[in-house]
Amino acid sequence: MNDENTCQMLDLTAACDRLLAADHWLILTHQYPDGDTLGSAFALGRTLRALGKKARVVNADPFPEKFAFMTDGVEWDKFEPVHICAVDVADPRLFGDALADYADRVELCIDHHASNTRYARYLLLKEYAATAMLVYEIVRQLGVTPDAAIAESLYTGIATDTGCFKYSNTDPLTHRMAADLMEIDIRAAQINRAMFDTKSRSRIELERLALAGLRFEWNGRCAVMPVTREMLAKSQAHDNDMDGLASIPRAIEGVWVGVTLREVDTDRFKISVRTGRHANACDICARLGGGGHPAAAGCTLSGPLSEVIDRLLGAIRAAVPAIETHA
Amino acid sequence: MNDENTCQMLDLTAACDRLLAADHWLILTHQYPDGDTLGSAFALGRTLRALGKKARVVNADPFPEKFAFMTDGVEWDKFEPVHICAVDVADPRLFGDALADYADRVELCIDHHASNTRYARYLLLKEYAATAMLVYEIVRQLGVTPDAAIAESLYTGIATDTGCFKYSNTDPLTHRMAADLMEIDIRAAQINRAMFDTKSRSRIELERLALAGLRFEWNGRCAVMPVTREMLAKSQAHDNDMDGLASIPRAIEGVWVGVTLREVDTDRFKISVRTGRHANACDICARLGGGGHPAAAGCTLSGPLSEVIDRLLGAIRAAVPAIETHA
Repeated sequence: MNDENTCQMLDLTAACDRLLAADHWLILTHQYPDGDTLGSAFALGRTLRALGKKARVVNADPFPEKFAFMTDGVEWDKFEPVHICAVDVADPRLFGDALADYADRVELCIDHHASNTRYARYLLLKEYAATAMLVYEIVRQLGVTPDAAIAESLYTGIATDTGCFKYSNTDPLTHRMAADLMEIDIRAAQINRAMFDTKSRSRIELERLALAGLRFEWNGRCAVMPVTREMLAKSQAHDNDMDGLASIPRAIEGVWVGVTLREVDTDRFKISVRTGRHANACDICARLGGGGHPAAAGCTLSGPLSEVIDRLLGAIRAAVPAIETHA
Repeated sequence: MNDENTCQMLDLTAACDRLLAADHWLILTHQYPDGDTLGSAFALGRTLRALGKKARVVNADPFPEKFAFMTDGVEWDKFEPVHICAVDVADPRLFGDALADYADRVELCIDHHASNTRYARYLLLKEYAATAMLVYEIVRQLGVTPDAAIAESLYTGIATDTGCFKYSNTDPLTHRMAADLMEIDIRAAQINRAMFDTKSRSRIELERLALAGLRFEWNGRCAVMPVTREMLAKSQAHDNDMDGLASIPRAIEGVWVGVTLREVDTDRFKISVRTGRHANACDICARLGGGGHPAAAGCTLSGPLSEVIDRLLGAIRAAVPAIETHA
């Protein structure tokens, strides 16, 4: 692995020159792949092949069915990896076990995370809303006109990392790139439906069990949603069914502090705290041995559920005295 | 009211000339006002005032608290209405009782609905994703540089009518306008959070009751969600808590036909059917005396819930024979 001193930052042109100068590119994504790492990888792979190069995309984990359309009609090349490029991978530990062997051989990393550990020989980093925005700039710089498959992959990466242009990372450039990609004949609404308006059967089962156990404190200023092992078993929920679950309690009107307690082991709870402008999630979790950001923080507590909730409410009361006053 | 012959279509320039030529503009929205009618009205009202004119926005109904920010810092002028402009109102019946007296006096209508009944003396109509897109063109044509308040109103109209750029009505121009508006210092992420990521307490109560009653047929190909009067009473749900409820069953992975049954009177159900590419909602509802579009249709059935569901399942089986075969 390169230490920080040997990682060289590249600009867009220099990164493209590197991509052009070599052939047989193995493109790596991060584990539990999401729309941005996959969209960036497939778009880059297809672009390199459009330039007559051999390329292959690999992931440590199988990816959710909803992303399968990105691989339509592509048969990746088989070759002994010579040049390795990682996209949207901030830390080599995120490659996952299956790709761990490549971790210290990454030649070029293309990423948008400020937290990138600079593990690659060369790094192209821009703090865009999505790595796919950066890959779109690469595609254009390389002189490739994106076909619908490339454009759909890039659009998917941009849309998923911005919550469909909803989050604060969305900026004018994000919208302008989306506009350009939509000029190509892409199935944007269909993609958005699959990404944002589709829930697995197990997710909906989990939601209904979790919502049934939702409780409010202090006149609705605090909402607490336990997700027990029993609920997880009953709903047959997978890891990716948990996405966004922690944001449900906070999204309820009038809630200052929204809490999700996920039972990760018997009587052991991973706690996610989300707050708005009336409370500081990090202050709350710091009192319980955890930490995080002002609006989103976490901690882990052990004990019977009712006891854990009592401790949690105690910490909230201490960190946000006004929550009681206003009740 | 003008009949169709006397309604004159205007282009952007002509509509702006009309706005410029007169003063004392009363701006009307449609009843149950949404983000687009309000955003368009407030942006237009503020723009006319920036030009030194007197203007006032009125609605038949009080509007949801989440839109209140649009009126920040504005005190509308008081005057006897002389010139009346309607925005995003496709049909004069949509003004609501409180504004019905103005229905036959509308001088200029600005709208994006192809179904506009041409009730106004002059009509500016473009089939954009949102009326706010058209109002944005008016603002620019009038030579007004939008301030943050105007830009936020327009952004809200565009975002709400496109499901935050998610629906099929979103096109490159939609994104480019959003990009331009974001160049102004607007609170886009905060607006999106209020519009899309906030649920009322009664809505979440209703969801948890409705999800608890969700049932699946034919190996999950069909999902049926009754919303009874008992649930509505228990959750204290209002009309606007029903928004998007009908799309929940269809959004579940593997579901071909998603049905919501809303008990509008004792043992009387308003039925919403949503389908994907495997089934035709209109075919199903036509068998039950209803109708609609291929992907979204409705009908009304009376009887005890279990009987109503049986008739409904019978119609689905008849209209979509494969739903059983694949079970």
